[in-house]
Amino acid sequence: MVNATTLYRHPDIGRDQCPVARTLELLGQKWTLLVLREAFYGTTRFGDFQTNLEVPRPVLSDRLTLLVTHELLLREPYQDAGQRVRQKYRLTQKGADLLPALVALMQWGDHYLADRNGPSVSLLHRGCGAQVQAELRCAAEHSLKTAAELEVLAGPGAKP
Amino acid sequence: MVNATTLYRHPDIGRDQCPVARTLELLGQKWTLLVLREAFYGTTRFGDFQTNLEVPRPVLSDRLTLLVTHELLLREPYQDAGQRVRQKYRLTQKGADLLPALVALMQWGDHYLADRNGPSVSLLHRGCGAQVQAELRCAAEHSLKTAAELEVLAGPGAKP
Repeated sequence: MVNATTLYRHPDIGRDQCPVARTLELLGQKWTLLVLREAFYGTTRFGDFQTNLEVPRPVLSDRLTLLVTHELLLREPYQDAGQRVRQKYRLTQKGADLLPALVALMQWGDHYLADRNGPSVSLLHRGCGAQVQAELRCAAEHSLKTAAELEVLAGPGAKP
Repeated sequence: MVNATTLYRHPDIGRDQCPVARTLELLGQKWTLLVLREAFYGTTRFGDFQTNLEVPRPVLSDRLTLLVTHELLLREPYQDAGQRVRQKYRLTQKGADLLPALVALMQWGDHYLADRNGPSVSLLHRGCGAQVQAELRCAAEHSLKTAAELEVLAGPGAKP
């Protein structure tokens, strides 16, 4: 849990360069992140995405194409016996690297938007069985609990 | 970095219970997370949100009300000398707890969607100056690098 305190923003970071804004421009549309969630669950075929998400076909088609265009998913041909060649979809490294963000959103929702009976999911480390959490950690292994502990500086690509 | 492998989904978790879906229903609209980002940067006043985000007034007003209704922001009256009473906004604990998700989205965007010159932001631990990262960690202090290391089980509130 993070305390409600304030991040410091460096004046050299242009507002239009905000990487949150850029990420949301790509992923902010309804269904896009849910299609990715399904891909993390191992769904690869159009029909399975449709069944699992109950999303209209044209919307699903649009979102898959968007994710392929931006190289979060890779399209691969496959062919079942006696069928025509179809396309399946799998996560690229770029797509897979959204896992911490997806888990962080999942945990927040499961904590704050859960049903009366409590969280619907429990995330465990397969290796040791301990609970898993998305958290902020520095290279010196300190765990950051509040926004005040975090300093936002201009990176090499920043322009005022 | 996370390898592209597959999460295991427990069959007892109903698809409509997905906490990612619930979170996106609340936060998925354009501008909502950017308004929160501004709140993390310490912005409290309507006019400052508008200046910093360059968002149309009615949209900003709608998103602030949404975030207050869902208790991610708190509305507080303030009064400058000789002026009428106005409202300012600050993060609640519920809002502040989105920091790991926001940082994870920020880092992904800064890595994959950066300009030619590289990342626009650099996140440091104020205490020791080391680089900060959003990552998955288990209670036994193991850092999870791939989705395959993560097991998704049904929680107490799960219904098939």
